[in-house]
Amino acid sequence: MTNLPSIADLGADGIEEMMRLTDKFVEVSGRAIPKVPALRGKTVVSLFYEDSTRTRLSFETAAKRLSADTMTFSVSASSVNKGESLRDTVQTIAAMGIDAVVVRHKSSGVPWRVAEWLGACVINGGDGWHEHPTQALLDCYTITRRRGTLSGLRIAIVGDVKHSRVARSDVLAFTALGADVVLVAPRTLLPPSLEGWPVTVADRIDDVIGSVDVIYLLRLQRERMTEALIPTLREYRNRFGLTASRVQRLAPDVLVMHPGPMNRGVEIDAEAAEDSRSVITAQVANGVAVRMAVLYRLLGSGADLVGARPEEALAGA
Amino acid sequence: MTNLPSIADLGADGIEEMMRLTDKFVEVSGRAIPKVPALRGKTVVSLFYEDSTRTRLSFETAAKRLSADTMTFSVSASSVNKGESLRDTVQTIAAMGIDAVVVRHKSSGVPWRVAEWLGACVINGGDGWHEHPTQALLDCYTITRRRGTLSGLRIAIVGDVKHSRVARSDVLAFTALGADVVLVAPRTLLPPSLEGWPVTVADRIDDVIGSVDVIYLLRLQRERMTEALIPTLREYRNRFGLTASRVQRLAPDVLVMHPGPMNRGVEIDAEAAEDSRSVITAQVANGVAVRMAVLYRLLGSGADLVGARPEEALAGA
Amino acid sequence: MTNLPSIADLGADGIEEMMRLTDKFVEVSGRAIPKVPALRGKTVVSLFYEDSTRTRLSFETAAKRLSADTMTFSVSASSVNKGESLRDTVQTIAAMGIDAVVVRHKSSGVPWRVAEWLGACVINGGDGWHEHPTQALLDCYTITRRRGTLSGLRIAIVGDVKHSRVARSDVLAFTALGADVVLVAPRTLLPPSLEGWPVTVADRIDDVIGSVDVIYLLRLQRERMTEALIPTLREYRNRFGLTASRVQRLAPDVLVMHPGPMNRGVEIDAEAAEDSRSVITAQVANGVAVRMAVLYRLLGSGADLVGARPEEALAGA
Repeated sequence: MTNLPSIADLGADGIEEMMRLTDKFVEVSGRAIPKVPALRGKTVVSLFYEDSTRTRLSFETAAKRLSADTMTFSVSASSVNKGESLRDTVQTIAAMGIDAVVVRHKSSGVPWRVAEWLGACVINGGDGWHEHPTQALLDCYTITRRRGTLSGLRIAIVGDVKHSRVARSDVLAFTALGADVVLVAPRTLLPPSLEGWPVTVADRIDDVIGSVDVIYLLRLQRERMTEALIPTLREYRNRFGLTASRVQRLAPDVLVMHPGPMNRGVEIDAEAAEDSRSVITAQVANGVAVRMAVLYRLLGSGADLVGARPEEALAGA
Repeated sequence: MTNLPSIADLGADGIEEMMRLTDKFVEVSGRAIPKVPALRGKTVVSLFYEDSTRTRLSFETAAKRLSADTMTFSVSASSVNKGESLRDTVQTIAAMGIDAVVVRHKSSGVPWRVAEWLGACVINGGDGWHEHPTQALLDCYTITRRRGTLSGLRIAIVGDVKHSRVARSDVLAFTALGADVVLVAPRTLLPPSLEGWPVTVADRIDDVIGSVDVIYLLRLQRERMTEALIPTLREYRNRFGLTASRVQRLAPDVLVMHPGPMNRGVEIDAEAAEDSRSVITAQVANGVAVRMAVLYRLLGSGADLVGARPEEALAGA
Repeated sequence: MTNLPSIADLGADGIEEMMRLTDKFVEVSGRAIPKVPALRGKTVVSLFYEDSTRTRLSFETAAKRLSADTMTFSVSASSVNKGESLRDTVQTIAAMGIDAVVVRHKSSGVPWRVAEWLGACVINGGDGWHEHPTQALLDCYTITRRRGTLSGLRIAIVGDVKHSRVARSDVLAFTALGADVVLVAPRTLLPPSLEGWPVTVADRIDDVIGSVDVIYLLRLQRERMTEALIPTLREYRNRFGLTASRVQRLAPDVLVMHPGPMNRGVEIDAEAAEDSRSVITAQVANGVAVRMAVLYRLLGSGADLVGARPEEALAGA
């Protein structure tokens, strides 16, 4: 493994290996001084062509806990226009001797192009509507910690599947690990074709609420209303929102998940977000540990770690 | 002490304790390698909803000298509008395992809300017109270093008191330590009511210039003129500015102070800013040491420091 | 040496000393853990009044490899307008006890003003059309590594010399080390007077292509066309571009250089940029090592390094 552009590259075995490795970093993160020397001298660059404080902060926290140096390269649309091409940027970073790049870009496929040019590790931090593999890993990890396994679970992914890289990566990961996935969305927010997707479809949240083990709400961008893809936020909430009353109808061990940031009162009510079934906060916490595992797996193995055995690398810094 | 939302939370004893602790960090800052391992493995996030390079840089320098990791989360108005709520941002940060948040926000009271949600230390880096407690600490420290005590000193705070969080925090701190405070401002730039403020009021700088020990100039926002709160900058300077000629009329041991950034030629002339009575540069330097003391007090005490005794934590890193 | 505002301050001896020092940091950069403790406890601030991710990233990488702390102070035009003066900013930074400032500004001469005010080391990271001394150092180093010396080499600098700080610094450095420099540019893109410049001039790239050892392409800002300084990009490329066919006519040991970012298809074709004669990637890589040498020379020598001998300072961190 030298890059992580897609969750598909990992497969079930790879996802499971990453989850075992994540266990170690959850342990590290729980220490009084949650810092290990594993990646000392390595440099991780966040190359973000789209704002995402949440994901960037999570990766940078992960890198710092591994003692890597971090640098941020946030590119506003304007400076891209006047500035250099993505290719020149990437080759410049490569020439500086950077060890890994976390790339977020509004266009699908950019992490693959970057990996071709870079000669350093590339991690997809979200590309367009396409993929967000570390989100899928942290979601798998969060579910597994609570329910022991994904195998045989029924998971509903609710909302704007069409424009969601989280949904794409999660469907791939959840089904690879043996879960049944049901998509719950208005037809306008489903991809034009679901051929080849190993999923079923429902068209109201009430149809699945009694039968699921996990209910995963997607963020609804308010632009979808002006684009006429949904009639009103109120009607969307009526049919697809996890309201305060619906969350009470879920079995006590059902997990409520959301990738953040939430639109409270639209796809999820505040009462549902704060309910005992909600593992939304655990998703964020696990996200740091998962990203530590990914960075360690990419940068810390083999000759790059100059002989440090994992137990040494993970000893207190 | 787990948070620092207001100078009022500290009281006279707390302020004096922080000043004694600051002495240690002034000593550390004077070393050839001004860095100690006290907060190794801790992460301090700057959550700034208003630009303030000065305050942010001071806190980050302080955190780095304590070997903490730092991350910046600067939020432009636009991304707040399209993005997540303050509450979600804070809960995300909390879930990542961050240890302290320095928050600046244009709305009064935000640090209290953040502290409710966070479960980590919150330091008020300035909230609206309300408070700026670390500024008050560094001002108290700067005066005490020069004059031995605040008790019995007469301090004039001159200018736009109404819109100034610095003035509010300084009045609380200076009077708590036994100083007499006189506010010098046009009526339009005083709060609507001064009931309960332990201060007197003067309406021209010349009325106080012969009797004060400290003269503290506030920054005048140029917007106050378009808002018709002052007639012209020239007239403001005539009545309230510390001009080159006025500074010469001050006794040699009077202290001239300003929180920065200065409007030279408006509230303070360049000659006054550079005069030997000016301790404006000392304020900035002491600001770093005071913030080291605050971070150390919040994050470095008790179980969090895992048994490190202060003398170890402050040994050379 | 306490500042580096201009390449002229170094002279031939100084440039050669910096190149010898750079050799050491190329070695450090090639290690598995490319990090040395030389500047531990020092703080380097990037004070950038113009966007330049490339230069900023290079300096920050250099500083981090030396174990210095780094802070970024990016100033958008708007916050300068509403905010404090350059002088106040610099005095604030100085008062915080910062050790070096890398300054980029659109006005020529700013680094000299900053150095007057600062009392800390100032490195010019590019001032207006004026100078970019670390670029000149890395260019000299890159040529010397490939060709052994600059003495007696013939170097063509092609393009918008008038608006280029790179060209100014390179002409000074290349000629100081004994190279012959020929400028190749339309008259509209040459300075109004070349009096005192130890260069010759040609007005088409084809006139020099058979006789040069180094061909250095400058970035052409697309604004030059709307300013009517060049007729069209196509005509510019015809007379001044290093096209795919022209690069083939260069002797195999000629070096093709560019400071980046490139306008592929304008001043340089993609085939020329990727040709075996191109050392553009080496320029970027050497840039980090050169900046490590500059920071080490400014901050690491004498009493500031508290007795650390170079061999200790460069031992693995």
